[in-house]
Amino acid sequence: MTLTPSAPSSLSDVDRARLLDVLDARSPGRPLPGAAYTDEALHRLDLELIWQRQWVFVGSVAEVREPGDYVTVELGTVSVLVLRDDDEQVAAFRNVCRHRGARLVEGPRGSVGNIVCGYHRWTYGTDGLLRHAPQLAAGTDTSCLGLRRVAVRVVGGLVFVCLAADPPRDVDAVAEVVEPYLTPHALDRTKVAAQVDLVEDGNWKLTMENNRECYHCEGHPDLLRTFFPTWGLEDHQVPPRLRAAHDRYLLAEADLALACDERGIPHRLVEDLVDRPLGFRIAREALDGLGESFSRDGSRLVRRLLGDLDEPRLGRVTFHAQPNVWVHALADHVVTFAALPLGADRTLVRTTWLVHEEAEEGVDYDVESLTEVWRHTNEEDAVFVGLTQRGVADPAYEPGPYTEPERQVDAFVTWYVDRMREEASR
Amino acid sequence: MTLTPSAPSSLSDVDRARLLDVLDARSPGRPLPGAAYTDEALHRLDLELIWQRQWVFVGSVAEVREPGDYVTVELGTVSVLVLRDDDEQVAAFRNVCRHRGARLVEGPRGSVGNIVCGYHRWTYGTDGLLRHAPQLAAGTDTSCLGLRRVAVRVVGGLVFVCLAADPPRDVDAVAEVVEPYLTPHALDRTKVAAQVDLVEDGNWKLTMENNRECYHCEGHPDLLRTFFPTWGLEDHQVPPRLRAAHDRYLLAEADLALACDERGIPHRLVEDLVDRPLGFRIAREALDGLGESFSRDGSRLVRRLLGDLDEPRLGRVTFHAQPNVWVHALADHVVTFAALPLGADRTLVRTTWLVHEEAEEGVDYDVESLTEVWRHTNEEDAVFVGLTQRGVADPAYEPGPYTEPERQVDAFVTWYVDRMREEASR
Amino acid sequence: MTLTPSAPSSLSDVDRARLLDVLDARSPGRPLPGAAYTDEALHRLDLELIWQRQWVFVGSVAEVREPGDYVTVELGTVSVLVLRDDDEQVAAFRNVCRHRGARLVEGPRGSVGNIVCGYHRWTYGTDGLLRHAPQLAAGTDTSCLGLRRVAVRVVGGLVFVCLAADPPRDVDAVAEVVEPYLTPHALDRTKVAAQVDLVEDGNWKLTMENNRECYHCEGHPDLLRTFFPTWGLEDHQVPPRLRAAHDRYLLAEADLALACDERGIPHRLVEDLVDRPLGFRIAREALDGLGESFSRDGSRLVRRLLGDLDEPRLGRVTFHAQPNVWVHALADHVVTFAALPLGADRTLVRTTWLVHEEAEEGVDYDVESLTEVWRHTNEEDAVFVGLTQRGVADPAYEPGPYTEPERQVDAFVTWYVDRMREEASR
Repeated sequence: MTLTPSAPSSLSDVDRARLLDVLDARSPGRPLPGAAYTDEALHRLDLELIWQRQWVFVGSVAEVREPGDYVTVELGTVSVLVLRDDDEQVAAFRNVCRHRGARLVEGPRGSVGNIVCGYHRWTYGTDGLLRHAPQLAAGTDTSCLGLRRVAVRVVGGLVFVCLAADPPRDVDAVAEVVEPYLTPHALDRTKVAAQVDLVEDGNWKLTMENNRECYHCEGHPDLLRTFFPTWGLEDHQVPPRLRAAHDRYLLAEADLALACDERGIPHRLVEDLVDRPLGFRIAREALDGLGESFSRDGSRLVRRLLGDLDEPRLGRVTFHAQPNVWVHALADHVVTFAALPLGADRTLVRTTWLVHEEAEEGVDYDVESLTEVWRHTNEEDAVFVGLTQRGVADPAYEPGPYTEPERQVDAFVTWYVDRMREEASR
Repeated sequence: MTLTPSAPSSLSDVDRARLLDVLDARSPGRPLPGAAYTDEALHRLDLELIWQRQWVFVGSVAEVREPGDYVTVELGTVSVLVLRDDDEQVAAFRNVCRHRGARLVEGPRGSVGNIVCGYHRWTYGTDGLLRHAPQLAAGTDTSCLGLRRVAVRVVGGLVFVCLAADPPRDVDAVAEVVEPYLTPHALDRTKVAAQVDLVEDGNWKLTMENNRECYHCEGHPDLLRTFFPTWGLEDHQVPPRLRAAHDRYLLAEADLALACDERGIPHRLVEDLVDRPLGFRIAREALDGLGESFSRDGSRLVRRLLGDLDEPRLGRVTFHAQPNVWVHALADHVVTFAALPLGADRTLVRTTWLVHEEAEEGVDYDVESLTEVWRHTNEEDAVFVGLTQRGVADPAYEPGPYTEPERQVDAFVTWYVDRMREEASR
Repeated sequence: MTLTPSAPSSLSDVDRARLLDVLDARSPGRPLPGAAYTDEALHRLDLELIWQRQWVFVGSVAEVREPGDYVTVELGTVSVLVLRDDDEQVAAFRNVCRHRGARLVEGPRGSVGNIVCGYHRWTYGTDGLLRHAPQLAAGTDTSCLGLRRVAVRVVGGLVFVCLAADPPRDVDAVAEVVEPYLTPHALDRTKVAAQVDLVEDGNWKLTMENNRECYHCEGHPDLLRTFFPTWGLEDHQVPPRLRAAHDRYLLAEADLALACDERGIPHRLVEDLVDRPLGFRIAREALDGLGESFSRDGSRLVRRLLGDLDEPRLGRVTFHAQPNVWVHALADHVVTFAALPLGADRTLVRTTWLVHEEAEEGVDYDVESLTEVWRHTNEEDAVFVGLTQRGVADPAYEPGPYTEPERQVDAFVTWYVDRMREEASR
């Protein structure tokens, strides 16, 4: 079965002209013009040029562990069904019945034998092929009536899909860099300890921009117990009030480098945010306090360490990829974040905590404690994103200058502008 | 008073071109393209070309029994006031005050002496004429300030209205065929036992399409106690698993034909779904089990039979007319269904159960039992329609092939395409 | 600091043509065509040509008594921050951070030292200047990063703002007429006793039109205890059923004229509704019953009189200005009403009751009694506006003839048509 192409581009000349006007109006070192965050027509172009053409993060292998396990992800009006097929591979399909179009699978996750449409019982295998359709006219060619397949790529246990017929190729190069960082955390031997869906009242780009800087971290008191507030700063940019924290950071980083080098675990920063479709950044970075996990004192939150790790104090692998994912992989757990657009001004942030598949809830970990820091941090971020959405929708909004700690935000916005220009020109 | 013409057509060349594109894209034997169910501009054309030009079912004479009794029906932003006037005729008016435009009557039903605007007390008779307007400038010609009248046609006790100045004429031909089937049920001697409004999260056409097939009837366990699952199938199309039910059906139909012929009651199928504005289908069909009513065992639900009927086992008159009505008339009760568009993706289904005007609640019938099967069936159908709406809004949707039991769905869609083409060309 | 111009006009030729069509379709002596109240594109033009170019009422000096006190007002997506600055002047700014655009101040009122953005702690003085921005790149010119200032004009204690760079000049002429009426009520020595926000489900123009006539006053039983029902009528227009009330009115007016003339307080009607940007009407008018206040028997509701007034029976200064304010100033309290558009079909009515700054709640006045009449009257008006909005959205709506008591409604609509024509031609 070949990949079915996505619907042909509906990009009109009017839309393209409008988009280019907005992209051209962006000044380097400043955010996008307001329309890029608020306009419905431009949002539809985001859905078409970014969300239906780029690799998009949808979850991890821990969410589809057994054949028939599935998750669904909504991207605008598109629904993608991601499942473990009977050959134990991760597969993805458009979540639409080939008969009269009913949504096949509802709800964010579950497990099935076959995929059976709830309306008229048309039945598809986990390979997407139509197995059974009652009273179908004799001679109908059912080989044309299988589910439309979606491209899938698993990178270090993280599942990406691409709705395009010819997905960007650079996912291979990214995977080659990223996988050695994630492999020690053995996502294929984890399970989901908790998942929280939070709706932010803002455009998905504001969600991503907010995540790319710690300039607002005073608003995250819980996070700052273990997260170094000078994140993203060059040494000479550290302001006096953060000097002490930065000195702790340098010491912790030195310790971390030693621990990693001893174990042959990569830790250096690789940042390639702008110049590729799947812009990304990965590093292993030290944590403050005891340096083990996102707890109040930095001690581990899960007794059972991931994979075959023998040391809890390994900081966090911090992975970010564009358009929609960031991940922290610690010695004791992994937390993944997917940003998924619900509308021009609403974004779902799906946060998933993964622990060793043999870790026992109530014995090895407590869900409340495990999730506390990022539940709070997400809720605080949702307020920031909401404030920003309301402000950029105001005709008085003019993009102001980024500060030094916002360098990665600038990179994200530049990536977005380049991507949209390139895709619009195709 | 002559009928006031509805607003002149607002059909632009762009809209017409778009509509024709979508209609042309429909393949015979398959559903409509997704845009026909989801696009706001196309929905406005549905409102204009179907809902404001065709005959639309709004209720039955049982809902406006006495002078001053009224019901209101909303079609998009249009509200129609249907009432029994002082001459005991069913009349209909646009529900808008001729002064500053206030909605005259709120709420779905009630009873009035005159029609008095709640804002400035302008007062109209049940004939629509302006009777009184305080402090109106001397010399104002009030004869021009009566309510705008809407065409009404009562067919066997079912009330249809048409917002057009020159309504389609074929209602007379349809009435001639249909009335003999309904007359024995004497709707003019019924009363409303119950009415339930249910909002389906789907386009009105999906509501109608769902109703035109029993291919999904496995999803209606209560209905299948009395409804033959081979409804709509030719004999050679009956699948083996339904053979036993079909054999019961054939026997029951033979019995029914006999009972009808003895009483001079028509029962044969008349189907004219595609080739006229008021496409319709009518027949008297047998029911399973005891064959009397939509109960658990098929026994009657109302002790007092309708009209002068002497026999409870008369199956059901099944009447369907396009765009928006289906009716079941049984010996003991009648149930009418009106589909009314609330938006491109929302439809009100108003279900009304009628019993003999002398039947006594709690003695002759129990409302809970009377309404059970169709309340459940409607709720199940609402789920199917909602699943389909979400799926056809997905760009992955492609119309698939109808099966044999979906022949009437195909006919409805063909009627819609033909109607829209013809109205758009005017 | 000079006033920053508002965004350049986005008025396209298509929009202008559409607007002119609707304005041209209005007949004198009748309301506007339906589209003027319901169409989203025309509503955006209202926001641009009326709300962003005219003087708009936002509250009174009693709401920003001390330096740092602020209120915010939303006009569509625009938010205006009105505050008392450190020089004790009333100032206004666009409520948007100059960094990444976050909404600066949330909630309708409060008090601040500096204006601090909740996202990244950018800090502005009450003069709007950027005082502090952490880690801003060295050499950034912060003098360009102050808040965008909005024009403010205080008229007799009522605060008006204008978002245009070059506000209409006639506010000076209006102030000259209006201030002598309001001065005796000394708004600068009042405080807010109560404020109620009510959302009406109608276009802002329907809210204003409803307020300009007492033709519907039978719907306001509480108000009619003290409000003469012949308000707005010429003597010869008074219908027989209102003759007795009108005779009481003439006597009360004679008394009032005497009391005013004795005290050198102006009371005659000045009406200039149509021929200026800030169309207005002001008079002092008598009240029914004891004639002191909006109570059940007309007796005063606040023991402490306003300013230096020595007489409770001074009727009410009734002030109305277009687009969005009406005020009643009585001897014992002032009540202001601001109509603020939330959407084409939703309007916020903010009602504020002001009493002498030294009046003590529970001793000098009771909030429940003080606010009762206008709370009820507003709720009744909200129903009328809602009925009208639903009706004018119906394609059956045709504007009908105004009656004699609706003369001021006619004037408001004429003002609106003239204003829009003039602004659209710029």
